[in-house]
Amino acid sequence: MDFILEVDKVKNIMRQTYLADGKRKENDAEHSWHLALMAVLLKEYAPKEVDLSKVIPMVLIHDLVEIDAGDTYAYDDDGAKTKRAREKKGADRIFGLLPEDQGKWLYDLWEEFEAYETPEAKYAHMLDNSQPLFLNDATDGISWVEHGVKKSQIYKRNSRTGEGAPKIWEYMQELIDKHVEKGHVIGDI
Amino acid sequence: MDFILEVDKVKNIMRQTYLADGKRKENDAEHSWHLALMAVLLKEYAPKEVDLSKVIPMVLIHDLVEIDAGDTYAYDDDGAKTKRAREKKGADRIFGLLPEDQGKWLYDLWEEFEAYETPEAKYAHMLDNSQPLFLNDATDGISWVEHGVKKSQIYKRNSRTGEGAPKIWEYMQELIDKHVEKGHVIGDI
Repeated sequence: MDFILEVDKVKNIMRQTYLADGKRKENDAEHSWHLALMAVLLKEYAPKEVDLSKVIPMVLIHDLVEIDAGDTYAYDDDGAKTKRAREKKGADRIFGLLPEDQGKWLYDLWEEFEAYETPEAKYAHMLDNSQPLFLNDATDGISWVEHGVKKSQIYKRNSRTGEGAPKIWEYMQELIDKHVEKGHVIGDI
Repeated sequence: MDFILEVDKVKNIMRQTYLADGKRKENDAEHSWHLALMAVLLKEYAPKEVDLSKVIPMVLIHDLVEIDAGDTYAYDDDGAKTKRAREKKGADRIFGLLPEDQGKWLYDLWEEFEAYETPEAKYAHMLDNSQPLFLNDATDGISWVEHGVKKSQIYKRNSRTGEGAPKIWEYMQELIDKHVEKGHVIGDI
């Protein structure tokens, strides 16, 4: 119960991505709900061996550490330097609220996500990177425009997205090019 | 993609339950995320045959119909009369945005939830009913106080919650009694 109430706080951790209607930014709980649903719907684009019973809890909990560490914007290079240490400390505390077996299981799932090695972690990262791109696409790229985001930054962040679902990454590239053409993303490459 | 963007609207469907910090009410996406995580964590309290690979998509999509039908408060008797028809129409349109096989699968899962017969539907209803109660408990029952809720109403709504997880329902009863004592719930039975 302590954990179930503690994680409620993730509903107040705001991200930089706007909802599809462009009216406000979304929070981590909404984002994680969206990823879990997408995980189910886009499974056919994932490598065959991907096990949804691992991916779903992984995406549901992947941002809980931000309750302590805060959201680090994808293109915030300074924040990125201290991100790992801040998030690890958060994981220790938050997953430590659970009974030991469940806490270790979710902590390990979070570490597996961060390590980006297993098919499940690759698929989860694809979801985590494509969902904000789809929302940006729906809002004429307001979050990209707001932060002056360059195509090279999006490509750097997504350098491994294709490993999680090659066809989705192809589709994302088409969207990125469309927004470079429209002037919402700086076409530096 | 149409479906993935359409369901984004559920992030703006507000419920009557306040977040655990009491500062604002939660929306359907946040609520559904919370249920999915609880589905995983409370599995040991469910009947053995419960299949999480059905429960999780079920709770992730159970409120999507409210994009068209709106949220009907648990203790709104007038709203309840037209709820089914409004929601069915919403389900037709929203799940109709998906490829036929996925649309039928999710529509059927939603109907299964509504029918409240399978072990998965019973477990999902237990989650759907206990989560707002836990949040109400965390906020000194502000939502109950706001609506002048009676113990008999909570018991009526939860008349079958024990079928989804007997021990959780026992715990919920303890919480309800505590809030009757504190005067947050009207102790009419």
